[in-house]
Amino acid sequence: MGKKIGVVLSGCGVYDGSEIQEAVFTLLAIDRGGAEAVCMAPDMEFPEVNHLSGEASGAKRNALVEAARIARGKIRNIKEVQAAELDAVIFPGGFGAAKNLCNFAEKGAGATIHTEVARLLTDMAAAKKPIGAICIAPALIAAALGKEYRPKVTIGTDAGTAAAIRETGSEHVECPVTEFVVDRDHKIVTTPAYMLAERISDAAEGIDKAVRAVLDLI
Amino acid sequence: MGKKIGVVLSGCGVYDGSEIQEAVFTLLAIDRGGAEAVCMAPDMEFPEVNHLSGEASGAKRNALVEAARIARGKIRNIKEVQAAELDAVIFPGGFGAAKNLCNFAEKGAGATIHTEVARLLTDMAAAKKPIGAICIAPALIAAALGKEYRPKVTIGTDAGTAAAIRETGSEHVECPVTEFVVDRDHKIVTTPAYMLAERISDAAEGIDKAVRAVLDLI
Repeated sequence: MGKKIGVVLSGCGVYDGSEIQEAVFTLLAIDRGGAEAVCMAPDMEFPEVNHLSGEASGAKRNALVEAARIARGKIRNIKEVQAAELDAVIFPGGFGAAKNLCNFAEKGAGATIHTEVARLLTDMAAAKKPIGAICIAPALIAAALGKEYRPKVTIGTDAGTAAAIRETGSEHVECPVTEFVVDRDHKIVTTPAYMLAERISDAAEGIDKAVRAVLDLI
Repeated sequence: MGKKIGVVLSGCGVYDGSEIQEAVFTLLAIDRGGAEAVCMAPDMEFPEVNHLSGEASGAKRNALVEAARIARGKIRNIKEVQAAELDAVIFPGGFGAAKNLCNFAEKGAGATIHTEVARLLTDMAAAKKPIGAICIAPALIAAALGKEYRPKVTIGTDAGTAAAIRETGSEHVECPVTEFVVDRDHKIVTTPAYMLAERISDAAEGIDKAVRAVLDLI
């Protein structure tokens, strides 16, 4: 049997959920690496953002129901997924990682983590299983694990976000879009993707390399 | 300046819009080929399908607004896009291609094509500019252009869909998921993707090859 890699989604769309392209490149790299993606998302409501206008619509959507669009319906409620059944876990980016999976977008280093996300992350880290995070999702990892593990992560070069990550006790390392950062002690792999990418192919390259690094750490 | 490739989307999600993974692989292959994607979708409502349950929700969504999620907001109303500004056009699949861009899913060979989609397709074909279509979208091409051009296309191996395509006057050729079919006379490139794919990497491979074939025909 292939390795099982959890992919934690937060909706479907960069402004209110998972960044779609990052999520798809994650799934592709997992499959190309001979592993199996286990898609999951929290069953929670979030405020919908109209991606044409960029404005909040006032309506709500459900993260699990919307994330099912990326996963072609093959997705589980994160509540039902245990660290024991996964060999690694990867968090694509998008504002959903910083607004739905936690509230880093609003609270910075003092962010509260969604209960089930916190449980899974804590259990994966305790089991020394690899954790990957893309784009803004490394801020979620930092907020969740910073105090205990002081992991080394990257979100690219954004100074404000890097400062907030350092405030969690984590280390921030600058990194170009087509590369990634590995914290070998904690088996944490991060890549900037659309925190920096101006071309879809650059985001794809960094994510492909980062996912392969996650698989290599298993 | 790079070549400009229209990418006609129909929403965001396989059951009621564009197949997300196919659309993303199309955008990636265009960028890797050194060309520029011009994303567009019709400004029209469609019935929303819950992708977790697979059931119609009873609500409506807008194809242009939802497709903006895939395109990260960089998308135009197809009504404003002229064939003269494009070097080629590609249609990713998903039920939206057969339910929103036309009604092939309901009417088969006798499908009515969305007015603006019909205009763009007719103008591209008349200008002998390459047309790519993925998954079920070749049925849209067949329904729109079958009578006049009798193009050769593939949707993979599904007998019922192939029969409906032949009814339009088009030729259907069987094709494996990682390959594509080229009608050199009409510059039409088609690949089965999720009409056949059981692995995301197979869909990605077929789409990558098909998009490169489209670029080579310019």
